[in-house]
Amino acid sequence: MSKEITSRATDYSQWYNDLVLKGELADYSAVRGCMVIKPYGYALWENMQAALDKMFKDTGHVNAYFPLFVPKSLFEAEEKNAEGFAKECAIVTHYRLKTDPDHKGKLIVDPEAKLEEELIIRPTSEAIIWNTYKNWIQSYRDLPILVNQWANVVRWEMRTRLFLRTAEFLWQEGHTAHATKEEAVEEAVKMLDVYADFAENWMALPVIRGVKSESERFAGAVDTYCIEALMQDGKALQAGTSHFLGQNFAKAFDVKFSDKENKLEYVWATSWGVSTRLIGALVMAHSDDQGLILPPRIAPLQVVIVPIYKGEEQKAVISARVNEIVKELKALGIRVKYDDSDNSRPGWKFAEYEMKGVPVRLAIGARDMENNMVEVARRDTKEKSSVSLDGIAAHVKNLLDEIQQNLFNKAKVFRDENIRKADTWDEFVQLLDEKGGFVSAHWDGTAETEEEIKEKTKATIRCIPVNNPMEDGKCILSGKPSVQRVLFARAY
Amino acid sequence: MSKEITSRATDYSQWYNDLVLKGELADYSAVRGCMVIKPYGYALWENMQAALDKMFKDTGHVNAYFPLFVPKSLFEAEEKNAEGFAKECAIVTHYRLKTDPDHKGKLIVDPEAKLEEELIIRPTSEAIIWNTYKNWIQSYRDLPILVNQWANVVRWEMRTRLFLRTAEFLWQEGHTAHATKEEAVEEAVKMLDVYADFAENWMALPVIRGVKSESERFAGAVDTYCIEALMQDGKALQAGTSHFLGQNFAKAFDVKFSDKENKLEYVWATSWGVSTRLIGALVMAHSDDQGLILPPRIAPLQVVIVPIYKGEEQKAVISARVNEIVKELKALGIRVKYDDSDNSRPGWKFAEYEMKGVPVRLAIGARDMENNMVEVARRDTKEKSSVSLDGIAAHVKNLLDEIQQNLFNKAKVFRDENIRKADTWDEFVQLLDEKGGFVSAHWDGTAETEEEIKEKTKATIRCIPVNNPMEDGKCILSGKPSVQRVLFARAY
Repeated sequence: MSKEITSRATDYSQWYNDLVLKGELADYSAVRGCMVIKPYGYALWENMQAALDKMFKDTGHVNAYFPLFVPKSLFEAEEKNAEGFAKECAIVTHYRLKTDPDHKGKLIVDPEAKLEEELIIRPTSEAIIWNTYKNWIQSYRDLPILVNQWANVVRWEMRTRLFLRTAEFLWQEGHTAHATKEEAVEEAVKMLDVYADFAENWMALPVIRGVKSESERFAGAVDTYCIEALMQDGKALQAGTSHFLGQNFAKAFDVKFSDKENKLEYVWATSWGVSTRLIGALVMAHSDDQGLILPPRIAPLQVVIVPIYKGEEQKAVISARVNEIVKELKALGIRVKYDDSDNSRPGWKFAEYEMKGVPVRLAIGARDMENNMVEVARRDTKEKSSVSLDGIAAHVKNLLDEIQQNLFNKAKVFRDENIRKADTWDEFVQLLDEKGGFVSAHWDGTAETEEEIKEKTKATIRCIPVNNPMEDGKCILSGKPSVQRVLFARAY
Repeated sequence: MSKEITSRATDYSQWYNDLVLKGELADYSAVRGCMVIKPYGYALWENMQAALDKMFKDTGHVNAYFPLFVPKSLFEAEEKNAEGFAKECAIVTHYRLKTDPDHKGKLIVDPEAKLEEELIIRPTSEAIIWNTYKNWIQSYRDLPILVNQWANVVRWEMRTRLFLRTAEFLWQEGHTAHATKEEAVEEAVKMLDVYADFAENWMALPVIRGVKSESERFAGAVDTYCIEALMQDGKALQAGTSHFLGQNFAKAFDVKFSDKENKLEYVWATSWGVSTRLIGALVMAHSDDQGLILPPRIAPLQVVIVPIYKGEEQKAVISARVNEIVKELKALGIRVKYDDSDNSRPGWKFAEYEMKGVPVRLAIGARDMENNMVEVARRDTKEKSSVSLDGIAAHVKNLLDEIQQNLFNKAKVFRDENIRKADTWDEFVQLLDEKGGFVSAHWDGTAETEEEIKEKTKATIRCIPVNNPMEDGKCILSGKPSVQRVLFARAY
């Protein structure tokens, strides 16, 4: 195999990069920290987008599009938000190039085309959007506004990794405006549930719903809700966040509405987003040393059919039958490819589609044809079985459902096995070092302790789970009293 | 009406702005030259995207995503392309803000965070994409590459207009790579046909297919094919372009492939794009002094139903029946809204949906119910008729098809009436000034004459139509011999 993959045991990080590159999800680009999303990776993203977009619309949201640029004066209006993102902003300062007088055919920035006010490339769009909502909202009748945007954003990260952390990434960002605090909180929680539903039922990724500690909150939020997933190496990954923004942005941009009693009030806000980072989570949650394993519901290709033949005559006979099967599968809405190319041998094709994580492979040869059978291989368990061609489409459809469920179950067992309680500092450190995963421990609720734990162990508070049981205890670091355990982990 | 629209006769340009703003397609933003695409306008764009995307995929293309940024050294590699876009580039020079030491709460660009190499925000993506293709292409087996990208691009225009010309706009850009010149030309022409098909059959916008003169070509192209449409004020609008790029980008980025004889050759290229500009074309082609008129196939809302009632009891009876109708319409795939809000009267609602260009309106009152009838109003002709509720869904479906066809026919008659021949300079100028539209005239084929005509009349060569008949004549300006007429017009 020319496409050898580093094993997880050898180098987990290299294994991940190998999968992304050799599975043809993405490629490095000439731009520092930016990636190219290749057609196979983008098809995966399109399937994720379609499912999410439908969920957003089913919950009453509409899409819109706001400018890529945020003028500096707007960017700095909400101080905490500005402070949070100031250090990772790409900034446009000029609007024209001109010919370099010293080098023929080269261009230089035209110093005379300096912008009066610098433009920040959106790292997130609260500022530009709330500045716009100001014009859209006068009365309670204009509320709620339930808008989502699919867009690219830029955060100038110093250490980047394909999908997980890139300078530019694709995402959706919901920005809603409400007349009451209650309604805004309800919206933030509802969208967290949508994300959890999507992660679990489409990505087969079990997640823990929770709320962030103050230090881990989105800059400018009153509360940040999150879904946290566990990767195979025992590190956590934040898979989506939903923020209750209070009236912070309404106050920064002076967005008021007159309520039913004709009294002027500031508007309540939420924002929520998931990004192409989810693709990184997907890769790390399910895949193995042979390549990607993609959940059927979002896999670009769900079934591949490989013919095994000697000579054109056999191929023609097999192809005639396969074309019927392809039709049957497509009629059931299954994404299927018949790979009858002569460029490579069946074994090579098997490895290639294994690498790409195609959930089901059918292989059919001359003898199978005689016996009216086909070899069915599942990518997740690598089990192979010989199945009758009669009713093969229905069989495959059920199998895809089974694989989807199996991937979720497997990930859930792994996740559940990797939530452990620690009651002392030593236990805490030992669990993090030897087992990884989530460690459920008491914390005194202060940012200082949180910071010290992070410095000592690189573990952060991933979340305080929804419906967390109250339980008296002592903080693992400070020994001070604590009313509940929180989930710590090292994280991506 | 609070939402009064300037009439076309009074001020065509203001009429257009009124429609875009009051029809809630888009809004101005705080960023110079950038607009906000509002939910109603974005829903229109989503319908256009969906139709185009399917056409691209049906012709074998796949989507991918490339970086927003182009490093300056790559940007300048293809000289003509660079020269063409250099004057309208937004340029990122810094990657960090810091607190302004002199003004608490304000931020300034951190002078220490200057990029070593400036990044151009893509005005088009040939450079970044061909720099990537270099890594993807070794042999003829890697060809063709048929990739499309949906993205935002930035061109720093000095005079902007909502949708028609904005600093940032949304578009798709196809970028294909081929082993032979013939195949690349075929691709460029095929995509022009796809655009024409989309414009005519989805947007109800008749277009002329043609090729651009050298002066009007895309910077870096060997040939630019285009579709040209005519607006109601007699000005032309370029609605889409498809470029045969020859080997220009392959040479600039050193992209070679080994052919079947193992000989190294430069790769052949095309690129093609349409943008949110099409929404401007749509508005100007069909709408009237009462508001937007949207073609049913892409209208966000195809049917609106307005109840006319006195008291809750009547409303309940009407609503029960309407809910059935809504179900029937949805079952036929029709986008329908039942507007039973109590906030505004039927007359206000009628005007509102007329403004928004909803193709069909059903109004139903208590007496209609008794007679088992409903009032059906079409937006395009403003005709009203009383129609039996039995089979109303099928009636509406047919009516939508009829409206779609009628809009196209009407635009086509207008367009065809506004292509006129001029054989002398005086005639040419008179036609442009008094009639507008396309003027078919002889031209000597030189860029100098073309430029002089443009300077004298503001008319440009829109295209040399596909299958243009050869015909000896004399250039209307220079009097020099000419072998064919070309289409001139003043244009957006």
